[in-house]
Amino acid sequence: MEYSFNEILRKLRKYDGRMYDTDFLLTQEKSQDDIKQLLYVAMGLKYLYENNISTKCFNSGLGISIFRDKSTRTRFSFASAANLLGLTVSDLDEEKSQISHGETVRETANMISFMTEIIGIRDDMYIGMGNSYMREVGQALDEGFAKGVLPQRPGIVNLQCDIDHPTQSLADLLHLYNYFGSFRKLKGKKIAMTWAYSPSYGKPLSVPQGIISLMTRFGMEVVLAHPEGYDLLPESIEVANQHANEYDGSFKVVKSMDEAFQNADIVYPKSWAPFSVMQRRTELLKNSDKDGLKVLEKECLENNAKYKDWTCTQEKMKLTKGGKALYMHCLPADITGVSCVEGEVEKEVFEKYRINTYIEAGYKPYVIAAMMLTNRFSSPYQLLKSLYTESDWRVRPYKNW
Amino acid sequence: MEYSFNEILRKLRKYDGRMYDTDFLLTQEKSQDDIKQLLYVAMGLKYLYENNISTKCFNSGLGISIFRDKSTRTRFSFASAANLLGLTVSDLDEEKSQISHGETVRETANMISFMTEIIGIRDDMYIGMGNSYMREVGQALDEGFAKGVLPQRPGIVNLQCDIDHPTQSLADLLHLYNYFGSFRKLKGKKIAMTWAYSPSYGKPLSVPQGIISLMTRFGMEVVLAHPEGYDLLPESIEVANQHANEYDGSFKVVKSMDEAFQNADIVYPKSWAPFSVMQRRTELLKNSDKDGLKVLEKECLENNAKYKDWTCTQEKMKLTKGGKALYMHCLPADITGVSCVEGEVEKEVFEKYRINTYIEAGYKPYVIAAMMLTNRFSSPYQLLKSLYTESDWRVRPYKNW
Amino acid sequence: MEYSFNEILRKLRKYDGRMYDTDFLLTQEKSQDDIKQLLYVAMGLKYLYENNISTKCFNSGLGISIFRDKSTRTRFSFASAANLLGLTVSDLDEEKSQISHGETVRETANMISFMTEIIGIRDDMYIGMGNSYMREVGQALDEGFAKGVLPQRPGIVNLQCDIDHPTQSLADLLHLYNYFGSFRKLKGKKIAMTWAYSPSYGKPLSVPQGIISLMTRFGMEVVLAHPEGYDLLPESIEVANQHANEYDGSFKVVKSMDEAFQNADIVYPKSWAPFSVMQRRTELLKNSDKDGLKVLEKECLENNAKYKDWTCTQEKMKLTKGGKALYMHCLPADITGVSCVEGEVEKEVFEKYRINTYIEAGYKPYVIAAMMLTNRFSSPYQLLKSLYTESDWRVRPYKNW
Repeated sequence: MEYSFNEILRKLRKYDGRMYDTDFLLTQEKSQDDIKQLLYVAMGLKYLYENNISTKCFNSGLGISIFRDKSTRTRFSFASAANLLGLTVSDLDEEKSQISHGETVRETANMISFMTEIIGIRDDMYIGMGNSYMREVGQALDEGFAKGVLPQRPGIVNLQCDIDHPTQSLADLLHLYNYFGSFRKLKGKKIAMTWAYSPSYGKPLSVPQGIISLMTRFGMEVVLAHPEGYDLLPESIEVANQHANEYDGSFKVVKSMDEAFQNADIVYPKSWAPFSVMQRRTELLKNSDKDGLKVLEKECLENNAKYKDWTCTQEKMKLTKGGKALYMHCLPADITGVSCVEGEVEKEVFEKYRINTYIEAGYKPYVIAAMMLTNRFSSPYQLLKSLYTESDWRVRPYKNW
Repeated sequence: MEYSFNEILRKLRKYDGRMYDTDFLLTQEKSQDDIKQLLYVAMGLKYLYENNISTKCFNSGLGISIFRDKSTRTRFSFASAANLLGLTVSDLDEEKSQISHGETVRETANMISFMTEIIGIRDDMYIGMGNSYMREVGQALDEGFAKGVLPQRPGIVNLQCDIDHPTQSLADLLHLYNYFGSFRKLKGKKIAMTWAYSPSYGKPLSVPQGIISLMTRFGMEVVLAHPEGYDLLPESIEVANQHANEYDGSFKVVKSMDEAFQNADIVYPKSWAPFSVMQRRTELLKNSDKDGLKVLEKECLENNAKYKDWTCTQEKMKLTKGGKALYMHCLPADITGVSCVEGEVEKEVFEKYRINTYIEAGYKPYVIAAMMLTNRFSSPYQLLKSLYTESDWRVRPYKNW
Repeated sequence: MEYSFNEILRKLRKYDGRMYDTDFLLTQEKSQDDIKQLLYVAMGLKYLYENNISTKCFNSGLGISIFRDKSTRTRFSFASAANLLGLTVSDLDEEKSQISHGETVRETANMISFMTEIIGIRDDMYIGMGNSYMREVGQALDEGFAKGVLPQRPGIVNLQCDIDHPTQSLADLLHLYNYFGSFRKLKGKKIAMTWAYSPSYGKPLSVPQGIISLMTRFGMEVVLAHPEGYDLLPESIEVANQHANEYDGSFKVVKSMDEAFQNADIVYPKSWAPFSVMQRRTELLKNSDKDGLKVLEKECLENNAKYKDWTCTQEKMKLTKGGKALYMHCLPADITGVSCVEGEVEKEVFEKYRINTYIEAGYKPYVIAAMMLTNRFSSPYQLLKSLYTESDWRVRPYKNW
């Protein structure tokens, strides 16, 4: 689905300026209109990029990233987004810095922010801690700005926490929007967010939690499936139920992949660790209990192994609507016979949708850039309009010579 | 104290162009006027930043940082300063590079400088070596430029060495300037630079040495206090004495924190390792003598523990002028009951001045940017004037839509 | 040899636009004219840089570097080149990223490329793998671009592989061009590419292979010398022979350094590991066979030690044309009595040519920038001309105030 830039602007205008100066920590804290604004801004930036129009909004300024877990996709998406707007990325590497000397969050938050516009944080390892940490940083920044320490109050973007993964779920939503054609067309679509077997353990819960929280808001029929004991955070289940009620969608939890796949328009099979395991793991990690962690890992892998049939096969795909459901994944997937012996998805299924998963991932830089832009500028509509009107080149023109 | 931009320009004009093409390695090598120029440039840059005026002076060019010790504050300050002027930071990480293959300083200095404007170096671990290393780099650059290897001779900025910590002491001076209102008002103010107990060992001497060298130049009454045996470099003591004579200040060393605090306008209680310990440590580090280092650490910590009463308490603060001296610290501080059981400062004192220490730290990016700018441009006055006149935005304007 | 900018433009015009949208993986895949174009673009960029004219061609965009081996020179050259054109460097650090989670090359190549213009890769450790890896990345990018995943197909620049080291050999060629004055004057010049003793082992073959492949194309008399058993890749020898035939040069392999030095205009004495050793090493590395690697290292160092007389001495230099051959090295060199007890070159010889080797290295940033620019722009001639005509400053002007 392609829109002209003027169509995008017209849509955006309705929702303009809604997230100015507010952190993006959880999609559930944002209104429907906030989210629509965000996606239209992302579309606008994509249009400008693809038409070689500069989207530089900053002549100087830092975008700081704090990664407390491995990342390729999100790291490069954050770097791309910052670069697109003119910000320079600086990584807070907690080993290189003096945080290891006992610095407090409050102090560090101010020390890195004197010329900072945006701070992106990934902290998804400890249940009950990642999102709280972001709020603690936010409070420190509020104080620093109020007391005249900081000339501006940097915005915070959640790059994945223990509760949510907004940059992923919103890139997924933008993918669905473009795949089906409009928000209206998402209404009534069935999405199966299901657990899948993986030979590794301890994968975060933020993706399934993010998906059931967000997709229930667009009138979608969201079905969550997982084996006994692989529960998500109770709070996320509650949010999904509320959203289903409020936004005329539906949400249910089932105990079989087959049931979830039945007549689904979209399937999202992905491994995660049970919430209760993540809680135990959090305690063990806090106490640096290596033996305890080994015992837990062994136990979990044994338990996982009972559910090897929770894998997305060609057979299972036949259960979906017309056998043609869209397969989604946040990548990297554990692909049977490719990246592991037995995993989340059969080689043939993955290969069929591989390019689709790449396109899905490709929305992430624009979603992050839109989070940055809606935070820093009071009128994204006016801003995008002026960028389009000025039409400075992004890459020096050369084809027409 | 706030100045209009024209006042800053007027003050700056008198001292214009004094540090063009000269490295910033020690404040004691700079004249009074050099230092005034630097601070006025820093103020000018701060004004422009806060008024959303671009200070971009480079369309391309690298600012290289070499950190041989941990750093958060200085690392981000350097990154911010470079970015503010349009330079891109590239870190020389000695583990990733081929320095470990036996490269000489002379060669490396040239290899990283083909498109480099500024090199910032932190090397504070080895007594007698950090500042020398910077000069060695400087000589290599001189040769490379003279022989046509380098199209420009990059400037060097000392980001902390064994002798001095100019970016810290100058940020501190700018803080005092703004706190008291003018250079003139600093005259006669008493500053107590005192040792304080810390449960760690081996903290560098560069901060107290930097403070006593610099503050004696502005007619201040500088009192250094430390327990028996916690001496600074004899050369720094000599410089402090000379400056006190030359600039109508005063300098003395006392043996008690109480005596130093008596009637002080400013207190700066901070731990450091004795000079003689740092010398022994340098030898042990050179020989990678791990056992020797352990013995030394144990010995030092035991010795430190004799002086736990050297801590900045509310009681001691009452000794200062009107009980209201300004507390300073380069951060992070060892705060009793917060970051350690017993440390440099009582929780209540630190909390009262916490925001002040953040504001103090906030001058550092501007001081570093001013070091860069005064090194690269023959007329900072004309440069700042033209930036102000052009008034390009730093962040794309949006509020007035 | 200095050219005016118009002379450079006039020369460039003949060869314009020849490498648009094609990766730079091996010099042997490029035509003579391609290579001439590249060097003229490099010269043009150097002229503009030295005359303070901005060469910014990108307002945003990433240049990604993937280093699978240590590097100072090439890392900083790549950073400088990207910065010169306006690209922001982002390092793909395979430890930080999720490649360690089992990601495929195909996927990663797309994930890092959504807003990427250039990918620079160094992968020189494994015989038969480095260059292949680059082609695999290239195919993944082709697919991603064709299927609409990527808005542009990033170009790939070989920063050193198992076969070639194009950025080095082309910087070397540009050095020779400037040293002797023209391509025509290189004709008939004798270059001795010879093995030299080093107390380390496992040095890559890419430099000697790159030199014999490239220099045979400019009518040069190329002589390769090494002890029995220190063979290069057979394919590189074949390419050197073909080029010598085709381009009216000559190529022969001799068994003594003295013979190679005889009447040489240029000498390039440098250590490398025998091709067959590198093959054995590749297998051992693949199997993480640490004991096997130790045995191999011991064996090789013992073998190397038989050839300690393969060192570039003042005596040997007397054999060269008029005793005045130009000494070249890719740096860092193993210098007898400086960086090792016995090494590739005598202290006195190296010192005499030290500045020359620095100047040689100084062409690398421009060569890399030229690779980027010829890949991204269909008419480098028109591009450079317009940059020259516009003449925006690179560093804000200040001298004329």
